[in-house]
Amino acid sequence: MTLNTDTTPIRLGMVGGGSGAFIGGVHRMAARLDGRYTLVAGALSSTPEKARESGLALGLAPDRTYDDFRRMAQREARLKDGIEAVAIVTPNHMHLPAATEFLKRGIHVICDKPLTGTLAEARRMRAAVERGNALFVLTHNYSAYPLIRQARQMIAEGALGRLRVVQVEYAQDWLTDSVEKAGSKQAEWRTDPERAGLGGALGDIGTHAFHLASYVSGLAIERLAADLQSFGDGRALDDNAHVLLQYEGGARGMLWCSQVAPGHENGLRLRLFGDKGGLDWQQEQPNVLRYTRHGEATRLITRNGAGSDAASATASRVPAGHPEGYIEAFANIYSDAAALIRAAQGKGEKPDAVLPGIEDGVEGVAFVDACVRSARSNGAFVALRR
Amino acid sequence: MTLNTDTTPIRLGMVGGGSGAFIGGVHRMAARLDGRYTLVAGALSSTPEKARESGLALGLAPDRTYDDFRRMAQREARLKDGIEAVAIVTPNHMHLPAATEFLKRGIHVICDKPLTGTLAEARRMRAAVERGNALFVLTHNYSAYPLIRQARQMIAEGALGRLRVVQVEYAQDWLTDSVEKAGSKQAEWRTDPERAGLGGALGDIGTHAFHLASYVSGLAIERLAADLQSFGDGRALDDNAHVLLQYEGGARGMLWCSQVAPGHENGLRLRLFGDKGGLDWQQEQPNVLRYTRHGEATRLITRNGAGSDAASATASRVPAGHPEGYIEAFANIYSDAAALIRAAQGKGEKPDAVLPGIEDGVEGVAFVDACVRSARSNGAFVALRR
Amino acid sequence: MTLNTDTTPIRLGMVGGGSGAFIGGVHRMAARLDGRYTLVAGALSSTPEKARESGLALGLAPDRTYDDFRRMAQREARLKDGIEAVAIVTPNHMHLPAATEFLKRGIHVICDKPLTGTLAEARRMRAAVERGNALFVLTHNYSAYPLIRQARQMIAEGALGRLRVVQVEYAQDWLTDSVEKAGSKQAEWRTDPERAGLGGALGDIGTHAFHLASYVSGLAIERLAADLQSFGDGRALDDNAHVLLQYEGGARGMLWCSQVAPGHENGLRLRLFGDKGGLDWQQEQPNVLRYTRHGEATRLITRNGAGSDAASATASRVPAGHPEGYIEAFANIYSDAAALIRAAQGKGEKPDAVLPGIEDGVEGVAFVDACVRSARSNGAFVALRR
Amino acid sequence: MTLNTDTTPIRLGMVGGGSGAFIGGVHRMAARLDGRYTLVAGALSSTPEKARESGLALGLAPDRTYDDFRRMAQREARLKDGIEAVAIVTPNHMHLPAATEFLKRGIHVICDKPLTGTLAEARRMRAAVERGNALFVLTHNYSAYPLIRQARQMIAEGALGRLRVVQVEYAQDWLTDSVEKAGSKQAEWRTDPERAGLGGALGDIGTHAFHLASYVSGLAIERLAADLQSFGDGRALDDNAHVLLQYEGGARGMLWCSQVAPGHENGLRLRLFGDKGGLDWQQEQPNVLRYTRHGEATRLITRNGAGSDAASATASRVPAGHPEGYIEAFANIYSDAAALIRAAQGKGEKPDAVLPGIEDGVEGVAFVDACVRSARSNGAFVALRR
Repeated sequence: MTLNTDTTPIRLGMVGGGSGAFIGGVHRMAARLDGRYTLVAGALSSTPEKARESGLALGLAPDRTYDDFRRMAQREARLKDGIEAVAIVTPNHMHLPAATEFLKRGIHVICDKPLTGTLAEARRMRAAVERGNALFVLTHNYSAYPLIRQARQMIAEGALGRLRVVQVEYAQDWLTDSVEKAGSKQAEWRTDPERAGLGGALGDIGTHAFHLASYVSGLAIERLAADLQSFGDGRALDDNAHVLLQYEGGARGMLWCSQVAPGHENGLRLRLFGDKGGLDWQQEQPNVLRYTRHGEATRLITRNGAGSDAASATASRVPAGHPEGYIEAFANIYSDAAALIRAAQGKGEKPDAVLPGIEDGVEGVAFVDACVRSARSNGAFVALRR
Repeated sequence: MTLNTDTTPIRLGMVGGGSGAFIGGVHRMAARLDGRYTLVAGALSSTPEKARESGLALGLAPDRTYDDFRRMAQREARLKDGIEAVAIVTPNHMHLPAATEFLKRGIHVICDKPLTGTLAEARRMRAAVERGNALFVLTHNYSAYPLIRQARQMIAEGALGRLRVVQVEYAQDWLTDSVEKAGSKQAEWRTDPERAGLGGALGDIGTHAFHLASYVSGLAIERLAADLQSFGDGRALDDNAHVLLQYEGGARGMLWCSQVAPGHENGLRLRLFGDKGGLDWQQEQPNVLRYTRHGEATRLITRNGAGSDAASATASRVPAGHPEGYIEAFANIYSDAAALIRAAQGKGEKPDAVLPGIEDGVEGVAFVDACVRSARSNGAFVALRR
Repeated sequence: MTLNTDTTPIRLGMVGGGSGAFIGGVHRMAARLDGRYTLVAGALSSTPEKARESGLALGLAPDRTYDDFRRMAQREARLKDGIEAVAIVTPNHMHLPAATEFLKRGIHVICDKPLTGTLAEARRMRAAVERGNALFVLTHNYSAYPLIRQARQMIAEGALGRLRVVQVEYAQDWLTDSVEKAGSKQAEWRTDPERAGLGGALGDIGTHAFHLASYVSGLAIERLAADLQSFGDGRALDDNAHVLLQYEGGARGMLWCSQVAPGHENGLRLRLFGDKGGLDWQQEQPNVLRYTRHGEATRLITRNGAGSDAASATASRVPAGHPEGYIEAFANIYSDAAALIRAAQGKGEKPDAVLPGIEDGVEGVAFVDACVRSARSNGAFVALRR
Repeated sequence: MTLNTDTTPIRLGMVGGGSGAFIGGVHRMAARLDGRYTLVAGALSSTPEKARESGLALGLAPDRTYDDFRRMAQREARLKDGIEAVAIVTPNHMHLPAATEFLKRGIHVICDKPLTGTLAEARRMRAAVERGNALFVLTHNYSAYPLIRQARQMIAEGALGRLRVVQVEYAQDWLTDSVEKAGSKQAEWRTDPERAGLGGALGDIGTHAFHLASYVSGLAIERLAADLQSFGDGRALDDNAHVLLQYEGGARGMLWCSQVAPGHENGLRLRLFGDKGGLDWQQEQPNVLRYTRHGEATRLITRNGAGSDAASATASRVPAGHPEGYIEAFANIYSDAAALIRAAQGKGEKPDAVLPGIEDGVEGVAFVDACVRSARSNGAFVALRR
């Protein structure tokens, strides 16, 4: 993993992520894995009682357990040993207000995706980042899988030749039934336009797929056409989306995201094809990258094993054949962010890896926005940006 | 396999399929495998010399080796022991003229796909079938894989509940380079609008994917939107196509076909999702059908093995775990067609399996036609039929 | 496939394989697939009624439907158009008496495996072959898979360097319950020492695994140690066997065969490791051969596709990605045997492929014999030959 | 994950694991992941300079960075806030002397495997544990994969019926070449009898395979027979081992471990078969457990997904489809050990999971010892214990 001259852990705060939340726990494990952070403060819930209990369970000092992120930002900014960075792991609609408070005080932000629920908010977030004097990292965690970084590098170096076709999909099945009506908190807010924003599956997982394809291919979307569906009974937001992609320079793609596909748990798959070869990667078996030079036998490149490169090895922790997974990839985001933060403090070198940031976030929300516009125009091709 | 009271092999002729052709040999193996046919006549090439040599190599009698399919139809129809059926395995543009000659003389036709190169021809073919007194079978061979028949049966019986999403793809890589310029006969005619018709990849493999999805799902397409590409240098027809599908009744789908996808050989895959479950099948591993009842562990149904049903077992020849493949599926078409022919002659019972026929053929060409229309309208959704 | 200057089909007879038998039907499909044989005579059952009915169902002339293989051998040898070859597909104990009748009359024999039930019989069979003037081919069909032939070729050419380790297994589950007591004819004779011989699973599938390992590796066994089990209630023969192998020259191996392994249908797998690389092949996915040059990414060599060689391509019928299976491999044995027979008649050239013959058959029975001896000696290592 | 009433992290020390060591880093990540430990002291190397530098890099206080584990044990035992537990991650020959120092002072020990290099040492270790007043946990980390715990539970509940056959293998390829002569520190000590003990591959990975089979099956070995090889040029210890297993009660098994199998990275696979069903699990794809009830389609049980049970879910951190891997399984050992330690301190409840301990360690060394005895007796079956 990336080394840094300052091994002192970064003081981290967290907004959201109280007991019962899923993604907050993931962020905490990701922060802990390499020992680059220490969690010292939190506004873990907007319910005071729950905020207190969650802070206690995590071993936070009572005076650094807040029930309001504004107070947390204000006070931590004044503390001598206040937080250096904050993780924002709330539902989407709170990303902007929360991040703004910390950015304007120079506290680095690590924010869950999608950036925001609407394009207008996304642009305000960008403005906040530009105004602030702090780093902004978006946890498009799949882009930090070692072999994804290798795939990006291989394409940049021309291993596939000129890219022609991109196929990306992210299929789940957990919203097959309308579990949002049956008490699933995770489902409730993700299917609620007030909290999730414009996109359902599109925002929750489509933005991941979209980002992954862009990150690895290095291609920019020009236009897209989308057909959106809400199959779940009474569901307001899409739970399945079919999207045609037209990239600058002539490459074409398809994106499918679904939360109603029984048999798929977290079926994120990316395939890329150029005039010299193809790549195939699946999140559920992330330690193998299938690489075909056109006309040769497909090679199984393994993480940190035969055929893997520096981009993959640097992001690996254990030898090939010992599977690394979701948490390790998430931790790559955190640990590289730590290196970025220390570098920004003049205490180390920047990591080689490119982390997803504010532009990726805006792009992701623009993707959702364009899909919705296309769908409202009977599936016509629309420009990504308006 | 289907039994029949008359085990006398059917006398078969063949149009096309001379030496060097690929698909002719496949048809002959398919006809031979179960002993239901004997090849007795052929117009194997339009080049007289090649026709003679090919007939000799196949052991045909010299007086039943023709260099013109019209003469063959005329003479065989008059022979006491003339052919009962003919296999048409020419490039697409010859399907209509050849089939017409046999249909009008009451000789049953087994025709390669796509039905024709254009929709106008397809309709003339339908008219010829309707006028004639002969069976017409189209070799959408993938639909005869045992587990595909089982998938169709399972869906008909409601195993997936109400269908929501169809994902189908057929990816190859053999046209990644412009091999049609480098002497590949197979590539030459398939990329030539004169001989192939409106569609390139669409006609050659897209129609297979389209038929398979329709055959298994039982759904009818209402509208589609397509983005077509010709990546190969100087290629006139599509070699990659992205299609959005809207089915009657609300289901939605995506279809991808490509001949420029390095790493894919004959990557035909069909996935179907309903509100009660999902199915997943891949042609390159055709002896396994993945079936997920929503909320339960995915089951691996094996051909003729645990979890397989009568539709699968009837179409199987060897026990589970002994792989059957492409030729066996193709032979299912032939052997069931033999049963149909004998039944039509009053000499046996019809098989249970539903074989692809003229309507499927017209539908397939309408699919290509609609894709081209949509692509010309900037990817707008268009009705399948015009 | 192998070409031959004489395309006239070989006149074939069959002993055993009447209605209800499994393997007889496989032999017939294998003989038909490439059109190199025509079945003209049979002693399909020792029950006269069943012999007649089976012959009728297969379209044999009544006067060439026999109820006794001796009469068949005598009469066919005298006919002007008598059979040129015979397929013997009876239970094991009849292989020797049946084959002997044909061999001594110069009729070529294609015999199912294992060669015989005991080593003494195997030696008498070898003597009969040596005395006769006819070819003897043993249907170790798995050795005729295209990629198995390629694996053999690769090893012969040194792709793996010096061989060190052989791992071979053949696991089934159909005898998990004692189905021989519940009316399964297939199970009845295979678990009956009178008809099956010394070995249960060992004879039925262990000999296949043993042959495959020898065929591909080119190594000869020196010693082995075996632990045999009969898990099925009241079963007299082994249904599971664990064997340690010591090859001449220092390579070592393990062989596992089982008919009581739920979840395995026909799980034949062969892995070979040398000081320069490794190979891995599985019968249930026979169109892929995994090849690892030590220190490089594993390559997926596909049948007739990228990375496949002449040995594989010659034994293939359809393009890569169109799966071929068990019947095609079996047909490779038949079609190459046809070429061998024609060559022996001075009518064509020998095929390149090496077919399993009498020595392989004796070796296989010696393997079973040695396993039984070792097991009776408390698992001590014993020499293969005594 | 297991909850505990005392969330204060356990103060941990480490012996071995200085810079350059592989397994020390794994132990530290495993300890950090769930926040149940804080590393506060270390004797990270026997080279003073390296010990200091490694301690500094890990952020240890200088006065708690030791260059001798005896001094560390003595001093930490006297400190008010001395370590509560120690991780021992040295080469095998140091496990006994190091562990003894801590055990006798009541400091809990988490020790890497194999327990010791010889059976005599193993027995002395057991005596030390029995004399001491401290817990002893052995990091047979593979046994803590969620689906392995589920497999154990399923078998205990009778899902497979009466067990008949166990197949276990652990294949690697990193010692294919004699890298111990080319500067690989990892290879050097593992191939050196002085530091590794009696077994090479047997000790390093064979003990993992052996433990896993025992842990999941619940069966005890009665006898075994082994054939050991040292293929690497000039290698003193085995690098490949073939073992036949006879369990109490009649089940039989095979164990293969190899470090010279090109194409295998960490190919640990366990299959178990009973009279009612079978299970199949592979470490390189640890999030799927294949389960076959005899006569039914194989089910793919996914970690924390459909078909998973409490044993699996409790040991999971993220939803199904988000892969967990090697580090997470290792962390399960650590976090459950933390719960055990707190429970021993009267501060919480014991976890449900059964952790590998001293008896497993003695059994593992007895396994190596028996293999060596058998090999020296020409592969004769020997009792596990002498």
